[in-house]
Amino acid sequence: MMKLQLALDDLTPEEALKLTEQVRESVDIIEIGTPMVIREGMRAVEAMKQRFPDKEILADLKIMDAGYYEAELAFKAGADYITVLGVTDIFTVRSCMEAAADYGGKVVVDMICVPDLPKRIEELKKLHVHCLAVHTGTDQQAYGRTPMDDLKVMKRFAENTAVSVAGGINSTTAGAYAKLRPEILISGSGISHAPDPAKEAGAIKKAMEGR
Amino acid sequence: MMKLQLALDDLTPEEALKLTEQVRESVDIIEIGTPMVIREGMRAVEAMKQRFPDKEILADLKIMDAGYYEAELAFKAGADYITVLGVTDIFTVRSCMEAAADYGGKVVVDMICVPDLPKRIEELKKLHVHCLAVHTGTDQQAYGRTPMDDLKVMKRFAENTAVSVAGGINSTTAGAYAKLRPEILISGSGISHAPDPAKEAGAIKKAMEGR
Repeated sequence: MMKLQLALDDLTPEEALKLTEQVRESVDIIEIGTPMVIREGMRAVEAMKQRFPDKEILADLKIMDAGYYEAELAFKAGADYITVLGVTDIFTVRSCMEAAADYGGKVVVDMICVPDLPKRIEELKKLHVHCLAVHTGTDQQAYGRTPMDDLKVMKRFAENTAVSVAGGINSTTAGAYAKLRPEILISGSGISHAPDPAKEAGAIKKAMEGR
Repeated sequence: MMKLQLALDDLTPEEALKLTEQVRESVDIIEIGTPMVIREGMRAVEAMKQRFPDKEILADLKIMDAGYYEAELAFKAGADYITVLGVTDIFTVRSCMEAAADYGGKVVVDMICVPDLPKRIEELKKLHVHCLAVHTGTDQQAYGRTPMDDLKVMKRFAENTAVSVAGGINSTTAGAYAKLRPEILISGSGISHAPDPAKEAGAIKKAMEGR
């Protein structure tokens, strides 16, 4: 079943815990977003895992180097998933996979700014990465890009590898993304900045299920 | 004058403070490395700035998205420099530059894994970034790469933009790098894993000055 990932970015730890509590029924994966990692470090992962032990936690580290060491920091703190950048050296992705094997975790490759998607997807499939993330960045969204086209390319080449998608997704757009059958749909400010986050998360979940 | 940057990566905050105290005479810039940012968040920057107010602090965020927001987190915590990845969208670099202008900080572009160095250098010079960092990653070093060749390319194209260099530099190799006249030489485990870190940092500083 398609999972909903809640991205927690521009919130204090207290706000993040409160928001997650509000939307917990609709959310499968809690993402500690990069800005929260920068501010709080792995304390944010530990606090979230402790409060929501039945949810999966993703630490959005966007690893670019020292793959094993950095992935290990997050897995030890309680993360189920870490992210590594698709633009990095393939050795770094491989090191992340080794840490994932040692800790029973999963590796999501964030494909933001990867120039040749099909080529990179092929290389990553050979490493048996757990998930490929289509990601149109905040700064790219500001210039009108959406992840829809990249998602189509990704689904065409990913075959058996799971795909997640992020970049301005909310209850209005979720249905269109869901039709392309990614395994994970990611929403951040779509939920956190909504007047009623619980209602918005529920509406995204419904759209995902085609209801 | 060429500056020495101490990269603090795989240390606890206490070890990092102790090491910096030992080598402070030789060090100009204190780098809170990415693994330390992941573990501790911006607390590490705050603690270091408080303890060593006369030193410059670099937060090695390796920003890939949300440039303004993430750079601002570090500048607010007391960082003098932040890093953004050269492989990211140029809009993200521009957003970092805007934050730097607002906070009086500086932007270092980490060129790790940039496929076409001369082309990217040209684009970055147009944005007047403060420093271009030649960086052979830990995972790449494990496969025998050194930053020497990239440093030669960088110095050839960087013109008036400052250049820093990192990747396995210690007192034995520092002299050869210094001859290429980068503005900043970065050493991490070369110093922290040395039997006598103060002596090693001093020896690197001497090699930098051609003594």
